[in-house]
Amino acid sequence: MSKEAFFISLFNSKQIGDDGAVLGNYVYSKDLFCEDIHFKRSWMSLEQIAQKSMLVNLSDAIAMNAKPRYALIGVVLPKSFHYEEMRALSKGFLNIAHAYGVEIVGGDTTAGEKVMISITVVSTLQGKALERKNAKVGDLVAYTGKLGESYRGLTRLLRGGSLSKKARFITPTLKANFVYKSAKYLSAGMDISDGLSKDLSRLLKESGNVGLHVKKKLPKRLLCSGEEYEMLFSFNPRHKKHILRLAQQTRTKISIIGKVARKRYRCICKEHHF
Amino acid sequence: MSKEAFFISLFNSKQIGDDGAVLGNYVYSKDLFCEDIHFKRSWMSLEQIAQKSMLVNLSDAIAMNAKPRYALIGVVLPKSFHYEEMRALSKGFLNIAHAYGVEIVGGDTTAGEKVMISITVVSTLQGKALERKNAKVGDLVAYTGKLGESYRGLTRLLRGGSLSKKARFITPTLKANFVYKSAKYLSAGMDISDGLSKDLSRLLKESGNVGLHVKKKLPKRLLCSGEEYEMLFSFNPRHKKHILRLAQQTRTKISIIGKVARKRYRCICKEHHF
Repeated sequence: MSKEAFFISLFNSKQIGDDGAVLGNYVYSKDLFCEDIHFKRSWMSLEQIAQKSMLVNLSDAIAMNAKPRYALIGVVLPKSFHYEEMRALSKGFLNIAHAYGVEIVGGDTTAGEKVMISITVVSTLQGKALERKNAKVGDLVAYTGKLGESYRGLTRLLRGGSLSKKARFITPTLKANFVYKSAKYLSAGMDISDGLSKDLSRLLKESGNVGLHVKKKLPKRLLCSGEEYEMLFSFNPRHKKHILRLAQQTRTKISIIGKVARKRYRCICKEHHF
Repeated sequence: MSKEAFFISLFNSKQIGDDGAVLGNYVYSKDLFCEDIHFKRSWMSLEQIAQKSMLVNLSDAIAMNAKPRYALIGVVLPKSFHYEEMRALSKGFLNIAHAYGVEIVGGDTTAGEKVMISITVVSTLQGKALERKNAKVGDLVAYTGKLGESYRGLTRLLRGGSLSKKARFITPTLKANFVYKSAKYLSAGMDISDGLSKDLSRLLKESGNVGLHVKKKLPKRLLCSGEEYEMLFSFNPRHKKHILRLAQQTRTKISIIGKVARKRYRCICKEHHF
């Protein structure tokens, strides 16, 4: 068990384990976004840092079939920050808030050595919650979009290169339309934040330690690419046609990677944080 | 305007300005609690750090006449932390959660150099929201408990001394019972986190730039003592008898410090963070 998993397990709450906590019609999610853990200042502008921190948090809500409504933003800022730098950060938060119809209703700031962003998102369910735990043996497993670009981007940054503002690692594209339309046909789902293999192992574990019968072996650069924020999901094969149609309607590429099986699945990647 | 106030003002939300954001019957509040800003590790045990971080956050909810229900906890932990240290932290969070009937429903952890705790509390209103903005000219202004101990404690710690676990600076005592019983008779209220003078200036500003006709001059060690988590509140003089009775019933000491007046009030203290 990782230290993070151990720490979270100490709270012994039945709500913990998904991208967000479902309480009545509301979903609450919270993620930290920290300098030198999740990003380096030299990689992105402050506006891009704020944008990505919001997108990463909205992704959790969307992955549970919930519409983000409100955000509370806590920010640790270096004392040396000037008004222009604060303006750039707030512009990033507001860009994404406006694009997704989210109101920033509160927050807290404090001084520190490194930039640290903590966002809580309050969302309302758009139907049933899409959780990790209900994948059934025989269900098909699929993901949206293309995987691997985020890892390629990260590798380039770590080698001293730079990325365009449209690069996946800088600006992930969330699959809200597809999720909201297809959620009722899905048995389980989550976003791919730590890599397909790692997140798949979580989904299958939460669904009763089931496994995956793979259609064909995928390359590691695709399986272990984190921060993709594409969707990973499962569904009963009888919904296949319907889901492919919804994918087409929402212009969402879908790749079916296999079928839920009894034998336990093991993640093949290491933690992806640099 | 402080940098914090400037940054918060950029979001231009009508919800921002109180201890929490009121949305329907819910109140959302969020506070950061950071090593070397709000505490030093040598001052308190990890259990005490977690406890205080929870109490500080619950205080925001209670100050708005809301009952805390759920908490989401984000924690940055040094990589060197062992299981025992994580257990001590989680014990602190759970102690306070249990004492106040709060469920910890989610969270996030990440590695960093210093301990940083970001808590979001979801609360339900116990009647009308107690806000800062409705103090009226002629209203009486009062605070609960004794002020000054927190500053004395902080001074002792800064000089290398230590504090007992019951000291105000280590374990603030919240005035939930008094708030819940008296809120309907109060015109405005907030908790005292940055010192009576500073917080009073905020309450009076939010109430339309009104001022205070002081009963008698208070000493600076009392006016500028932050992190007290006592309540500051105003009420129409016709409720005075009733409020004093509720204070007695809930064993809450009350000190009336003056009357809301037209002339603008100015804070006399500097920021209290060390």
